[in-house]
Amino acid sequence: MFSIRYTSFPPTQLFIGKNLLTPKILEGNIVIVVDSALKDLYGKPLAKMWDAALISIPSGEKGKKKKTQEYLENTLFKMGVERDVTLVALGGGATLDLVGFVASIYLRGVALVLIPTTVLAVVDAAIGGKTGINTPFGKNLIGTFYPPKSIFADLNMLDTLPEKEKLNGLAEILKIGLVFDASIIEEEGEKQILKAIKGKIAIIEQDPRELGLRRVLNFGHTIGHGLEKIANYKMAHGEAVALGSLAACHLSFSLGFLSKTDFERIQKIFTPFSLKLPKNYSKKKLIKAMAHDKKKSEGKLRFVLIDQIGHAIAFDGAYCRPVSETELKPTLDWIEKCYG
Amino acid sequence: MFSIRYTSFPPTQLFIGKNLLTPKILEGNIVIVVDSALKDLYGKPLAKMWDAALISIPSGEKGKKKKTQEYLENTLFKMGVERDVTLVALGGGATLDLVGFVASIYLRGVALVLIPTTVLAVVDAAIGGKTGINTPFGKNLIGTFYPPKSIFADLNMLDTLPEKEKLNGLAEILKIGLVFDASIIEEEGEKQILKAIKGKIAIIEQDPRELGLRRVLNFGHTIGHGLEKIANYKMAHGEAVALGSLAACHLSFSLGFLSKTDFERIQKIFTPFSLKLPKNYSKKKLIKAMAHDKKKSEGKLRFVLIDQIGHAIAFDGAYCRPVSETELKPTLDWIEKCYG
Repeated sequence: MFSIRYTSFPPTQLFIGKNLLTPKILEGNIVIVVDSALKDLYGKPLAKMWDAALISIPSGEKGKKKKTQEYLENTLFKMGVERDVTLVALGGGATLDLVGFVASIYLRGVALVLIPTTVLAVVDAAIGGKTGINTPFGKNLIGTFYPPKSIFADLNMLDTLPEKEKLNGLAEILKIGLVFDASIIEEEGEKQILKAIKGKIAIIEQDPRELGLRRVLNFGHTIGHGLEKIANYKMAHGEAVALGSLAACHLSFSLGFLSKTDFERIQKIFTPFSLKLPKNYSKKKLIKAMAHDKKKSEGKLRFVLIDQIGHAIAFDGAYCRPVSETELKPTLDWIEKCYG
Repeated sequence: MFSIRYTSFPPTQLFIGKNLLTPKILEGNIVIVVDSALKDLYGKPLAKMWDAALISIPSGEKGKKKKTQEYLENTLFKMGVERDVTLVALGGGATLDLVGFVASIYLRGVALVLIPTTVLAVVDAAIGGKTGINTPFGKNLIGTFYPPKSIFADLNMLDTLPEKEKLNGLAEILKIGLVFDASIIEEEGEKQILKAIKGKIAIIEQDPRELGLRRVLNFGHTIGHGLEKIANYKMAHGEAVALGSLAACHLSFSLGFLSKTDFERIQKIFTPFSLKLPKNYSKKKLIKAMAHDKKKSEGKLRFVLIDQIGHAIAFDGAYCRPVSETELKPTLDWIEKCYG
């Protein structure tokens, strides 16, 4: 018998700072794909600066589906776009996920550059190489790991965001703080964003394919994704993650892993948010919505849990624990009481 | 400004030999996806041996399209297949390409094992991590680079192939010999397969993402894919590649890169094949069919060319050369005269 081991990999370069988007950072054949809501504000000026083609796609999470994917693929084919293209994804997390997915499968993958326009997209979608679309079975169930060539996180764009949008980003930042590095929670503004990014990169470098440690980034997302699905993706991802994170903290507390003091401190951390369950929420709907989530195993839901602020529990390297419906009940009662 | 470079990669293990497919080589949750034509012969016995679920998909190149991709995705979702699954692709090149593609995008990628059932699939589709489906715009235009966890090339399966099928594999083997290692052409049987595999791995290890050297593996495929498209994918890939390789050799000769002696030797090498252009072939159709091929740049078709048997021309690291329609004409006249 004859046996060979071989390998391949792509690198990513991340830039964060003010006034990053200059003419010289990109060259060659460029196609910018922009969230339609940002076409005039960012799409057209950048297309002009880089002499790039511009394609606009339906806005936000509702547009992140197979229909938009196929529209983008076919538009690129009709334009005769070839392998030497650089696809630039310009928008929030949903746009980055969808354009990243198409970049990963178009002609078996073309160069991808991400320009996240929200704090949430910088911290969540842009870093880590995850791409994806939603399906009728659930969120992000079809997608790839496809690290971009580069990421430009322009702080000028992020500074001008409305307060509500900044809070969305804060939810993901706090999540990273809760599971990995409590000092992130103490920071503010750009320093906090940078520290959260560094934390996230430290995690994904250790486990790029989410076989263990990287699962801590799913903290708050089992319930978070379920809530988004119930709300038909009209709920902001950040709000869903904030509620989901609080629920995961409550679960950590109710299962005896997290102290009451820590849990109460965490509740205080989330006071800037005005959180509310979706109008059509019911416990039954949430359990059904979570059933198709990727973060299950052997039919049981799995949750990332913490035993102190800044530290997820390793559970023998699995970084998550199966949780039965009975174990989950007190937490679901609690969120309904507090946020219903 | 803050800047980080980071990376990720997956490895592949290839096994080739007799009696490889034993109970202990696979464990855990296994779903075998088999070409419907091989369901009874290989699918059912292997599913029984590994206690695996079995899904059968439409046979061959005609089934390698979005409809089959979605059927497979939805079947897996409905079965509740989770991330811990190992998808086993069992069949020829088309099956391996399609199942590999679904494995790369289902839940952002699950473990993939390839069991190629033809020599062509061993040498061509199985090695190199390329997956893909055909689109109305052309062949393999949507796909990924997704190296399998392991490849089992069982020589018992390959030894029982009909002669015509062995010739299909020989076409790809000779192609590797023509562009990379003339000694492959002199070998026979298992030794030849092994030498071709080693040659191909040597190429893809140097250039996994096809940015330069790996392009030599596209030798014969510009015209080959065009012919398959004209024939509506009813032409065997091996035959199309054999014809395409001969045409690329003629082109190398007619552009003055390859000697007449070498070109005549190559024609002799291909005598085991009884090659014929598709019934509905016309020069115009071929040029149109090639227009959407991935191997173009700036509107011009690009060809891999050789300057001696076993050696593709580097062309400053591009390993291909733009060819105008005028330059291509003598070659198209020649193949029509010889194989029309």
